[in-house]
Amino acid sequence: MAPPPFYAIISGVGSGTGASLARLFARQSYAVVLLSRKPSSYEPFVAEITAAGGTAIGISADAADPAAVDAAFERIARELPDSKLAAAVYNGHAGMARKPFLEMKLEELETSLKTTANGLFIFAQKTIPLLLASVPSSPHPPTLLVTGATASVRGSAFFSTFAAGKFAQRALTQSLAREFGPKGVHVALAVIDGGIDTPWGKDRVVNNGVEDGKISPDAIAESYWHLHTQPRSCFTQELDIRPYVEKW
Amino acid sequence: MAPPPFYAIISGVGSGTGASLARLFARQSYAVVLLSRKPSSYEPFVAEITAAGGTAIGISADAADPAAVDAAFERIARELPDSKLAAAVYNGHAGMARKPFLEMKLEELETSLKTTANGLFIFAQKTIPLLLASVPSSPHPPTLLVTGATASVRGSAFFSTFAAGKFAQRALTQSLAREFGPKGVHVALAVIDGGIDTPWGKDRVVNNGVEDGKISPDAIAESYWHLHTQPRSCFTQELDIRPYVEKW
Amino acid sequence: MAPPPFYAIISGVGSGTGASLARLFARQSYAVVLLSRKPSSYEPFVAEITAAGGTAIGISADAADPAAVDAAFERIARELPDSKLAAAVYNGHAGMARKPFLEMKLEELETSLKTTANGLFIFAQKTIPLLLASVPSSPHPPTLLVTGATASVRGSAFFSTFAAGKFAQRALTQSLAREFGPKGVHVALAVIDGGIDTPWGKDRVVNNGVEDGKISPDAIAESYWHLHTQPRSCFTQELDIRPYVEKW
Amino acid sequence: MAPPPFYAIISGVGSGTGASLARLFARQSYAVVLLSRKPSSYEPFVAEITAAGGTAIGISADAADPAAVDAAFERIARELPDSKLAAAVYNGHAGMARKPFLEMKLEELETSLKTTANGLFIFAQKTIPLLLASVPSSPHPPTLLVTGATASVRGSAFFSTFAAGKFAQRALTQSLAREFGPKGVHVALAVIDGGIDTPWGKDRVVNNGVEDGKISPDAIAESYWHLHTQPRSCFTQELDIRPYVEKW
Repeated sequence: MAPPPFYAIISGVGSGTGASLARLFARQSYAVVLLSRKPSSYEPFVAEITAAGGTAIGISADAADPAAVDAAFERIARELPDSKLAAAVYNGHAGMARKPFLEMKLEELETSLKTTANGLFIFAQKTIPLLLASVPSSPHPPTLLVTGATASVRGSAFFSTFAAGKFAQRALTQSLAREFGPKGVHVALAVIDGGIDTPWGKDRVVNNGVEDGKISPDAIAESYWHLHTQPRSCFTQELDIRPYVEKW
Repeated sequence: MAPPPFYAIISGVGSGTGASLARLFARQSYAVVLLSRKPSSYEPFVAEITAAGGTAIGISADAADPAAVDAAFERIARELPDSKLAAAVYNGHAGMARKPFLEMKLEELETSLKTTANGLFIFAQKTIPLLLASVPSSPHPPTLLVTGATASVRGSAFFSTFAAGKFAQRALTQSLAREFGPKGVHVALAVIDGGIDTPWGKDRVVNNGVEDGKISPDAIAESYWHLHTQPRSCFTQELDIRPYVEKW
Repeated sequence: MAPPPFYAIISGVGSGTGASLARLFARQSYAVVLLSRKPSSYEPFVAEITAAGGTAIGISADAADPAAVDAAFERIARELPDSKLAAAVYNGHAGMARKPFLEMKLEELETSLKTTANGLFIFAQKTIPLLLASVPSSPHPPTLLVTGATASVRGSAFFSTFAAGKFAQRALTQSLAREFGPKGVHVALAVIDGGIDTPWGKDRVVNNGVEDGKISPDAIAESYWHLHTQPRSCFTQELDIRPYVEKW
Repeated sequence: MAPPPFYAIISGVGSGTGASLARLFARQSYAVVLLSRKPSSYEPFVAEITAAGGTAIGISADAADPAAVDAAFERIARELPDSKLAAAVYNGHAGMARKPFLEMKLEELETSLKTTANGLFIFAQKTIPLLLASVPSSPHPPTLLVTGATASVRGSAFFSTFAAGKFAQRALTQSLAREFGPKGVHVALAVIDGGIDTPWGKDRVVNNGVEDGKISPDAIAESYWHLHTQPRSCFTQELDIRPYVEKW
C-alpha cells in the first residue's frame, strides 16, 4: 500500500504530547515522522501506529544540531518520496531548571536557548520551505505548531533561563506567523500553562492531586489538530491551555 | 419528539457568526436559542434549523436590558423545561464608532459599554447558574464564550469608545474564567482580529479584496465548538482569530 | 501676586496620591486645581499650599457628572483666567468591590464604569482641548495622566466589576495617546500594582506589614512628575509601579 | 581627590544612550565605568567626564565573553577599590538584522542571543552580587537597567532573530526583578520603541524627518535616572519610550 500523500513531523516525542499527536495525526491518515534524541522515545509509538495500519517513521536526532536535522530530512525524503509535509510540530522541551539566578550556570542558559530558540529556528528553516510547497495541495493549510509554556509569557523568579528560551521561541513564532501567514502557512503557539499528565510524571502532584488537575495530552493533541484544520481565513496565532483548577 | 436534553443560547444573532453558531450547535444535536433585538435577525435561522429537524427558539430582547433578559430566560424555562444549558455565547456587537475623540458623545461611550460590558454582565449572571447546574451532566464542560475584537487588546486611535467596551468585556471574561473555571465552567474569549465575511458586509472591501481575506463565520463557529468540547483538563481562555493576510 | 501662568488639575484628591501630586505640582510653581466630591477631601491641601505661598483651588464635583464638570471648568476659567493647563491627572478611584460574581449587582458594574471610564472620558473631553492649546507654550509637553491599578491589566477572580472599569480606562488612555501624542499632548497610564501608604489606610496590613511594603504617594507623584517632564521625543505611555516586596 | 563612593557601570557605550547615561551619572556624582568592545567607543566620553572633574574608566570587553567580563570587574575592583556599585545598565545592542527568515543564518540568531540574553546573563551575574552588597548604603536602591526595543514585545516579520534575543532579554529582566526586588535591588526594562537620535544615525530618516521624531538619548538617560531614584516602595519594572509621532 502506498504511504499517505501527506505527513506530519513531530519534533520532541517521548513527552505525552508528542505521542498523543503522533496517534492523532496517524488516525487522520497522515504519515507521521517522530524525531527524538533517543530511539527509545519514539519506538513504542512507531510500533503502535504501524501495527494499527498507519505509517510512522522514527528518527533519532538532536533538534539543535543542524547536521543531524539535515540528515533527518534527507532520510524523510528517501522514505516518503511521494508524501508532502502538511504539519510540523516543534515540541522540544527545554530542561526546565528552577534555581536561584546566582546559582545558574551560563551553560544552563545556553542549553535552554538551544533547545527552544535554536532548535525551533533550525526546524523552521527545514520545514517552512516544505510547508510552502504544500500550500496548493494540502488538505488543510500547512501548519507549524510550537509548544510553549507559562514561561513563554511570564519570567518568573528562579526560572530565568527557561523563560529566556521560551520567550525567544514565542518571538520566533510571531515573526514567522507574520511573514508566512500571508503565504498560506499557519504558524501557531500553544502556551501550555500547567502540568501535563504524562506516564513518566504520574507521581508528580500538581493542583493538590485533584482529578483532571493535569492536562490530558490527548486533549492538547485535539487542540493542535483544531489549529491545523482552521482554514486560512481563520488562523489562530496563539492560545493558552490550562487545567480548570490552575491558578493564573 | 422530545427536544434535545441540552441547549445552547446565542446572544447576538444576525451577524454571520451567530447564524453559523446556531447551525453548528443544532447539527451537534443541541437545541438552540437565538436572542436578538429584532425578530427579523433570527427568524430565518429558526426556520432553517426547524426545517432541518432541529429545535430552535428565537427571542427578541435587548441584551443590555435586565428585564428583557429575565423574560427571555423565563420563556426558555417554559419552552425547554427539560433541557439544560450547555453553551452560552455572548456575541453582541457594539456599534463600532470610528471618530475623533473630541467628536465622540458620552452617549457613544455609554452605548458601547452597555452592549459589551453590561450586556455580558447580565448575560453571565443569568447563564452561569445554569451552566454550573449542568456541570455534572453536560456532554462537554458547560461553556460561556465571548466574541471579542482587535479592540479587546488594543486601544487604537479613533476607537476610544469601542475599545473601552471591548477591554471591559475582556476583563469580565478573565475574572469569570478565574472564578468559575475551578467549578467546571469554561469561560473563553475569542479575539476576532479582522473583518467577518457576512452576507450584509459583502461589499465591504478588506485586505484589498483578496480571496479569504475576510473571516469565514462558519470557521469561527468551528473554533467556538472546539473551545466548547475541550475537556476540563485543557481549557483555553483566550485565542485570536484573523485571516492569513491580516496585518497585526 | 499674579497666579502662575500654568496650572495642573487633579481629579480625585483625598487619596494620598492626589495630595502628594498637589503638593509637588505646587512646589514646581504650577497653580493647582483640586477636584473631589467632598470639600473635606481637598480643603486641607488647598490651605496648606496657599499657606506655603502657592496657588490652589478646590472644587467639589462628581467627575462622572458632565454638568458638574462643566461648571468646574467654568469656575477655573474665571478664577485662573490667565493660566493655561499644563497637566491633568485623572486619579478617580473606583469603589473597588471584591465579591463573588453572582453577588455583584449591575449597579456595582455601572458605578465602576462611571467612575473609571465615563469619568475619564468627560475629564479628557474637557482637558484635551486645553492641553492642545498649551502645546506651544507649556514648559513641558501638556500631559494627561491616569492612575491605573493591577486591575487595569488583569481580571482577577472576584474583581469583575472593578477590572471592567480599569480595563476600559486603559483602553481610553491608549486610544488618546495614539490620537493626541502626534499633536504634542502626552497621555500616560500608571499601573499602580500594590497598596498605597495613605493616612486613612494606615491600619491596612499589606505585604505582612514589612517596611516600605506600601507605595509612598510622594514617590508616585515623583513618577508622575517625571512623565510630565519627558520631552516629546521621549514619551512613556505606560509604566507599572509596585513595592519591592509585591508579588506579581 | 578620592573617587566617588558609588559608581555606575554602563555596558554598551557608543550608542547615544550610553554616552548620555555616562554624562548624567557623572553629573550626579557617580564614578562611571564604560564598557565597550572598542576603546574608540568610550574614549571621548571618558576624556570629557574626566575633564569636567568627574571619574570615568573605560574598559574594552566583549559583554558576551565571560572571561573578558571577569577581567573587567577585576580591573574595576582595583581602580575603584572604595567605590560601591549603585547602578548597572545593560545597553548592549544586538546587530539588528532585517531579513526574510529563510535567508537568516543560524549564526545571526546566535549572535543576537549572545549579545542580548547571554550578555545580560553574564552582566547580571557579575553585578547583582555587587548591587546586593550596596543595598544598605546606596543613595538610591541599587539598580539594574536594561535597554529593550520594540522587538522586546513584538515579533515582527523579518526581525525573527532580533526579536528572539530581545524577548529572551525581557524574560531575564522579569525573572530578576521578581527574585531580587524583594532583596532591595531594582531591575527594570525600558522598551525603546523608536529610532534614537545618535550622531552616527544623523542621516537616517524616521517619521518623515519630523522634528523630535527621533528619541533624544539625553531624555532616555533622564528616564533611566528616574528609575534609579525611585524608592523601593515604588519600583517600575517596565516602561515604554517612543517619540510623540511614532506609530504603535
